[in-house]
Amino acid sequence: MSYDSNNPFARILRGEAPASMVYEDEHAIAFMDLMPQVEGHTLVIPRSPCRDLFDVDPEALAGTMRATQTVAAAVKSTFNAPGIMIAQLNGAEAGQTVFHLHFHILPRFAGIEFRLHAAVMEDRGKLDALAERIRKNFKPAGLGG
Amino acid sequence: MSYDSNNPFARILRGEAPASMVYEDEHAIAFMDLMPQVEGHTLVIPRSPCRDLFDVDPEALAGTMRATQTVAAAVKSTFNAPGIMIAQLNGAEAGQTVFHLHFHILPRFAGIEFRLHAAVMEDRGKLDALAERIRKNFKPAGLGG
Repeated sequence: MSYDSNNPFARILRGEAPASMVYEDEHAIAFMDLMPQVEGHTLVIPRSPCRDLFDVDPEALAGTMRATQTVAAAVKSTFNAPGIMIAQLNGAEAGQTVFHLHFHILPRFAGIEFRLHAAVMEDRGKLDALAERIRKNFKPAGLGG
Repeated sequence: MSYDSNNPFARILRGEAPASMVYEDEHAIAFMDLMPQVEGHTLVIPRSPCRDLFDVDPEALAGTMRATQTVAAAVKSTFNAPGIMIAQLNGAEAGQTVFHLHFHILPRFAGIEFRLHAAVMEDRGKLDALAERIRKNFKPAGLGG
């Protein structure tokens, strides 16, 4: 299937839709998930247009994973999360709802399950505040770890 | 925490423990999960020693993601899976049980949930047969898609 350039993440990339931004670099951006499965649920997406893992070029994928690594370290630090789950869904049958490749960063705590199929929209002000907290926790350089 | 060079995946990498191998390249190897959450559950790991996403170097991470992309395409094709979920768990609280970085490739089908906490060991012969099926489905070159 072809890439729909009007998908919600394409609109965020073009600045046409709001997002609680956490991180930006040459290859990728990160922002708070609008329907979080857990507090701190953050998404990392490549700037280049691609539906999923199967049509992203290797350089964009490598850059997106590097950003995911960096952002995940900041999310872990911000929420004192002992565990971090990375999830990436390809196809509606896997739970993909926006067809621009994205990596979920999900803080995990012992005994706290998260909703696999969240459908509750979070308050934008709350997401903006979380994003600001995460932005303060980026390491200056290196692996971000 | 430091890397334990006697973890099960380190032993597979050294050839000291068996695995139903699916794929190998310079940076990464892939094999069937011994306690599959769904048929076709495959793992991709870097050759370099690292506990999780936070201590893998960028080149090894990029190579591992490239391998994950290639193997995921073959798994999708082998099992005619409309969906593919990629999951990567950091820390026991996120469900990580082997402390060598690994990416789960999970075929997904509409209406079929998978067990998040599988604990049933699969028959080695059955895993070897699945691995052989996947090995026949690698695309000759490119993105593997």
